[in-house]
Amino acid sequence: MTTTNIEKTIEWIKIPKGGFSRMINQILIPYEYKKVDVSTTKDMYDAIKTMIVRGAPAIGIAGAHGVALAALEEKESQNFIENVVKKADYLNSSRPTAVNLHWAIQKQLEILKSNKDKTNAQIIDLLIENAIKLENEDIEINKKIGEFGSSIIPKGATILTHCNAGALATVGYGTALGVVRSAFEKDKTIKVFADETRPRQQGARLTTYELIRDGIDTTLITDGMSAYFMNKKMIDVVVVGADRIALNGDSANKIGTYAAAICAKYHNIPFYVAAPKSTIDSSIKTGDEIVIELRNREEITTINDRLICDNRVNIINPGFDVTPNSLITGIITEYGIFKPDEIHKLF
Amino acid sequence: MTTTNIEKTIEWIKIPKGGFSRMINQILIPYEYKKVDVSTTKDMYDAIKTMIVRGAPAIGIAGAHGVALAALEEKESQNFIENVVKKADYLNSSRPTAVNLHWAIQKQLEILKSNKDKTNAQIIDLLIENAIKLENEDIEINKKIGEFGSSIIPKGATILTHCNAGALATVGYGTALGVVRSAFEKDKTIKVFADETRPRQQGARLTTYELIRDGIDTTLITDGMSAYFMNKKMIDVVVVGADRIALNGDSANKIGTYAAAICAKYHNIPFYVAAPKSTIDSSIKTGDEIVIELRNREEITTINDRLICDNRVNIINPGFDVTPNSLITGIITEYGIFKPDEIHKLF
Repeated sequence: MTTTNIEKTIEWIKIPKGGFSRMINQILIPYEYKKVDVSTTKDMYDAIKTMIVRGAPAIGIAGAHGVALAALEEKESQNFIENVVKKADYLNSSRPTAVNLHWAIQKQLEILKSNKDKTNAQIIDLLIENAIKLENEDIEINKKIGEFGSSIIPKGATILTHCNAGALATVGYGTALGVVRSAFEKDKTIKVFADETRPRQQGARLTTYELIRDGIDTTLITDGMSAYFMNKKMIDVVVVGADRIALNGDSANKIGTYAAAICAKYHNIPFYVAAPKSTIDSSIKTGDEIVIELRNREEITTINDRLICDNRVNIINPGFDVTPNSLITGIITEYGIFKPDEIHKLF
Repeated sequence: MTTTNIEKTIEWIKIPKGGFSRMINQILIPYEYKKVDVSTTKDMYDAIKTMIVRGAPAIGIAGAHGVALAALEEKESQNFIENVVKKADYLNSSRPTAVNLHWAIQKQLEILKSNKDKTNAQIIDLLIENAIKLENEDIEINKKIGEFGSSIIPKGATILTHCNAGALATVGYGTALGVVRSAFEKDKTIKVFADETRPRQQGARLTTYELIRDGIDTTLITDGMSAYFMNKKMIDVVVVGADRIALNGDSANKIGTYAAAICAKYHNIPFYVAAPKSTIDSSIKTGDEIVIELRNREEITTINDRLICDNRVNIINPGFDVTPNSLITGIITEYGIFKPDEIHKLF
């Protein structure tokens, strides 16, 4: 199984007093490659909100780290549990769509609540231990997703992907790009077409960055071009990540995914979602229940701090859209590949 | 009938020695509003190629002006006709997809060839006269397109458009945006959603610029967002321009149009193409025969001169795509609205 040349996107750094979270600053890529150390709950909230760390699985780990940081901050507090829960809720509010954030914070809160008899210091150790466990599991899960997913990639295929569901969206290896990496390990002739993914350009900035480092043949296209290449029979399969999947298989992912899925269907091209079980929200039946984050106007009106339009224009900036199960060929998880309407069987 | 606050996009300026072409430099909008004077064939070729002037009808007029400039340059030449034809061919090669360029140059060559008995000076006068006539006709044609097109815009509708088929894409008023302007004259509550239109961002840069100047409620979205808003029932009708239309109604337009048409069909939203008869290429039966211009990599890899991706990435940059007649509800011309498979009746 192949590895990737990208270091861990997010990692807990242990120090005697407890530690802190170290992450790649994804806002700077591809201009600069820098890591940033986050050691307060407030800074973690901001790191998630401003997308220094982004990608559903990665912000899950950020949430887990954040709860550990909250516990460290509250170590001497009289109302330790209560205050940590409050800060966890605060972290939880940083971004609404990706369920992994809620899932990982919930995992930490379970530890917090089921160890009330222990000392604060002991609980903190357990939270840090669990955060590191989730970190390591994330990579293992992605490798399983990659292994299952590689089976659906035809020899010599060109894979279209949208946004960045790669090593940088996870702790390492990636979900959709984990599938690409596993396929590439077996067949060096596969190719990737990466949608630019406006407004934040994660495809242009992050996906090209990490795939080229791994030696994978990558073509960057603008979001409006994929249908053109589908029509030219230059795209064989679409694989994307997800931020939240409903029990019926409806999948929320970065804005623009839905259009790509409609175009894939129109051209009879298979469309796969690759995501860990933690991305499935078993509390919701359909995608109609998924809250779509509305982001700020500057993401659309400016690029690299320069205005690209008449600034009096109206902006609506949904960060995600929902692809209905009818457009999804299969959902690739660490437990295998499921038809969207069978994904509920995982629960 | 409404007018627009945009001046003539391209205009022949008469001076005693003959004149020159004055055009709005569209590369600078929305950063600066400047006009540029073009007085040689070479400069006209570059202005078309680099998109100082763009939009199928506008580059048609640029071609007509260019032939007049060629004639002025060759005024004293022994092989006047032959040399002007050569320079016309050169201008014709500046951009391959929009048929209006070829159409307008052809109109000038007809004058050249049918007046061989006249003096060079007389022929030059006729070419200038014809260029000005085509200029003025373009605005009249657009107003007719707008008048016919406004009939298909429901009261209070939100119209999605792609790229810029506005005053800036023509001599004035616009084709798709001519429809918007005529509809707005009758109903001030209509709204426009403008696709950004990567890579060159004509939607963000030009469409928002001219519609806001006319007081029309305009929302800028990225190219991947239109399906989201269609799903939310926030888009009632799509109206776009065209660069070349085949006899069966297949229509080439700015890259990304095809994806918008597929998404409109999926959501049962009417999709209209607005274009003058001169955009219909009666020499081709279907869109398969339309040559798609492949443009340079920098249009995708850089925005405002700053790299947005790993520069080792592959780039394929088709400037246009072809929307098949099956996805087009109607083609709005100065002669009325036609079903795509009836457009051949205009010939």
